[in-house]
Amino acid sequence: MARRQRKIPMVRKTNYGQLHHALGPQSVLSEDNVAQIHENALHVLQELGISILLPEARELLKSAGAQVQDHMVHFPRDMVENALQTAPKRYTMRAPDPDKDQEIYLGRQLFASSGGCPNAYDRIRGRRPGDLESYREAIQLQQSFDIIHKLSPAPEPQDVPNHLRHLAMVETQIANADKALAIYARGRAQVYQMFELIQSALGISEDEFRANPYCSTVINTNSPRLIDNPMAQGLIDFARAGQLTIVTPFCLAGAMAPITVAGALTLQHAEALAGITLAQTASAGAPVMYGGFGSNVDMKSGAPAFGTPTHMQMTLGSGQLARHIGLPWRSAAGAASNTHDMQAASENTMAIMATAMAQATLTLHTAGWLEGGLTFGYEKFINDIEVLQILGHFSKGVDQSAAAMSLDPITEVMPGGHFFETGQTMERYGSEFYDPLVADLSNFGTWEAAGSIPSQERATSLWQARLTEFTPPSGCAERLGRMAARLAQMREARGAPILD
Amino acid sequence: MARRQRKIPMVRKTNYGQLHHALGPQSVLSEDNVAQIHENALHVLQELGISILLPEARELLKSAGAQVQDHMVHFPRDMVENALQTAPKRYTMRAPDPDKDQEIYLGRQLFASSGGCPNAYDRIRGRRPGDLESYREAIQLQQSFDIIHKLSPAPEPQDVPNHLRHLAMVETQIANADKALAIYARGRAQVYQMFELIQSALGISEDEFRANPYCSTVINTNSPRLIDNPMAQGLIDFARAGQLTIVTPFCLAGAMAPITVAGALTLQHAEALAGITLAQTASAGAPVMYGGFGSNVDMKSGAPAFGTPTHMQMTLGSGQLARHIGLPWRSAAGAASNTHDMQAASENTMAIMATAMAQATLTLHTAGWLEGGLTFGYEKFINDIEVLQILGHFSKGVDQSAAAMSLDPITEVMPGGHFFETGQTMERYGSEFYDPLVADLSNFGTWEAAGSIPSQERATSLWQARLTEFTPPSGCAERLGRMAARLAQMREARGAPILD
Repeated sequence: MARRQRKIPMVRKTNYGQLHHALGPQSVLSEDNVAQIHENALHVLQELGISILLPEARELLKSAGAQVQDHMVHFPRDMVENALQTAPKRYTMRAPDPDKDQEIYLGRQLFASSGGCPNAYDRIRGRRPGDLESYREAIQLQQSFDIIHKLSPAPEPQDVPNHLRHLAMVETQIANADKALAIYARGRAQVYQMFELIQSALGISEDEFRANPYCSTVINTNSPRLIDNPMAQGLIDFARAGQLTIVTPFCLAGAMAPITVAGALTLQHAEALAGITLAQTASAGAPVMYGGFGSNVDMKSGAPAFGTPTHMQMTLGSGQLARHIGLPWRSAAGAASNTHDMQAASENTMAIMATAMAQATLTLHTAGWLEGGLTFGYEKFINDIEVLQILGHFSKGVDQSAAAMSLDPITEVMPGGHFFETGQTMERYGSEFYDPLVADLSNFGTWEAAGSIPSQERATSLWQARLTEFTPPSGCAERLGRMAARLAQMREARGAPILD
Repeated sequence: MARRQRKIPMVRKTNYGQLHHALGPQSVLSEDNVAQIHENALHVLQELGISILLPEARELLKSAGAQVQDHMVHFPRDMVENALQTAPKRYTMRAPDPDKDQEIYLGRQLFASSGGCPNAYDRIRGRRPGDLESYREAIQLQQSFDIIHKLSPAPEPQDVPNHLRHLAMVETQIANADKALAIYARGRAQVYQMFELIQSALGISEDEFRANPYCSTVINTNSPRLIDNPMAQGLIDFARAGQLTIVTPFCLAGAMAPITVAGALTLQHAEALAGITLAQTASAGAPVMYGGFGSNVDMKSGAPAFGTPTHMQMTLGSGQLARHIGLPWRSAAGAASNTHDMQAASENTMAIMATAMAQATLTLHTAGWLEGGLTFGYEKFINDIEVLQILGHFSKGVDQSAAAMSLDPITEVMPGGHFFETGQTMERYGSEFYDPLVADLSNFGTWEAAGSIPSQERATSLWQARLTEFTPPSGCAERLGRMAARLAQMREARGAPILD
């Protein structure tokens, strides 16, 4: 019963913890062409094949009916179709605190912060390689905002040696947060250690662990058409342990994928289906998420671009393909800008709004991403959280009750008057509207008198305050205590190596 | 034939000049409640009435069947329904250059810059009262980007006396631009002078002028339930001259409108229908646009907020109401921020994306708005143009041709390879992707070596270059010449007074 503790309820106007999309999904492809892209992806899988570097994965697929030649695996159509039958359409992503559990199915709207950033940046300490301190701070910031529904691994704690880093990352999540955990698949030895630690921390048996995903990992294919060793092993290990793989080709049109949206989506779809099929072959019914993260590169420099028309179109197309196969899916926002400026804000906001249009189940990289993911920015994180909260409030929908529709206020107020004092306003003024986090709504004179501070600078004191005031949620110490001995043993035994 | 000149075609990858929405319209209200809000608005018009200050307008409405008591006008239901029958669902908004004409109907996607800003701001000259120089520069900037489809009046040229200002504003538009003209309805005397000047400049007869809208004006009701003298007179004068009125209540929920989205939309709808009915009563068939510009105020300070959940919800609800009555409609983006910062970018981007979700026909205030419309910002204009262009490129849709869907590139490229050199990429690399205006996609080191300049600062040299290089489009000098004599006479005769 360790997971069933009482907590002090948060005082907040809007409950961002459990969101559903308010709008219907939008389309950029005809239904015929969605079906055609699916067909083309099946053709790619069967006729062209996917290069899978891990012999164990090839053996597994071969024994399940795939044709294997050297490292190339050709997937028969029915094998892929069977995998799509066994992949669950609905499951619960468990969190250390059961109140933070998230039901995963098409129609849910979940957000995660930033993944994979090697560097950190803030206005006080500047740009620096990610370290355990910035990783811990980012976990604390993610924990501080209910609009973030699961944890993400960034910045990378580069000051911790590779063989111990996975332990530090799990420890830091368990010590500071109660939301769904995110770990890396960098080889079986590390993954098994983390699975064991999570079971210890949560006080659950191996059977309980297997029954629901208590952690997730992002599986990136090496587009085009290649799955490397740690990714293939991760697919197998997570599936067999009942843990969640988010199978996401990162298809940058014009570079690692065809230059057209339709072509890039075809490649993405084929690779995602290959990963899903490997997971389902390893363990039928294992929780998986279809992943789509596509954008374009700048054709002058080859640099990735985000928040572009191509990014938005691929997001909407990914949603169509996910719905075609009926699976919950993961999308991504993001920004290419090198700093917390208007470019960064617009890029990320457009990308986030596209995920609302596309009805993405889970969107990653929604807060803090800079430089196309190379840096986690603290001030950008705060400004991005504002956008997410606005969208979260929007997703609560419009009050269409009789009280909200009432003509009484209009009847009460004379022409040219105001509504500040109507009964309806008095009842609702504290809760009707979104309450800004970093936005400053004061007039120019007031803002100027306060120092003419732009939002990216105001954000500094906001993240500082969140970190200064941070207290781990209840249960963290207990969970940490339960895993402490085993963690110490693992450290003593020099952790575990990564798999290249 | 003065309007049929040849021009040098622009070299641009994406044709932003003629846009249609790529996505279907989204809903925040049930269809039943859309119908109910329409019914409620008819009830407000009939039972509560609208205060119309102009005796001439009351007389006109009375003779058409309205009940009038003092300044209050009660609109019978069938009078409003008749007006909605005669209001055209489709018309052409003419521009000085016929190539810039815009067909107006539900499904079109048009953008305008900033209206009504008393002040101007840029990083070189700072914040200052709008003057004729900044007004001219703003017209030139609007002319410089095809994604702006009609002109908007801002910043306000406060250095020109009131009785001559309308002349200077028309002259500046004619002298620098060839897009659809925008003028203010500040009283009959001024309006008639501007109509006459536009006819002279375009070399068209009064009958030709009447046959199509060659200029437009925004009619703002004084919410709640009041139409003032210049607005009522403008509705009559524009309607009788066949010119376009954009009837837009500015309903800030919690202040000039009920605090709920449903209530604020009800008031907006009633007021818009009142204005449309007055225009149709003055001249059945006159071109009108339904207007929705609603957001909320900050309940702590009463300050208007933009890019909020309420703003987006009112935008989507306005679209539903416009489609319910079948009329093309005008929406608005906007930002409350006092400077060109991340807040400003996010506010405006969210608001713009909501207009795409809402399928707004024409969106105003999309570029340059700061301080809730009190200031036109040059750097913000440039950054906002980027967002509009991205959305415009997005609206071109996804290429679903056989060539775009082709599996050839995927077949050509080996696993782990790249697509930079496929035939498909080589054919399309110059045109497939959006080409950034102010976004910097270079890596951190390159960006840092170039001075670590954020997008809001990079924008300065961009607007400076546009203004330095600005040449009026062909035909301007000719149009200006045709109106010069009459303009001089009007100035000699001390212009015309405004109507309070």
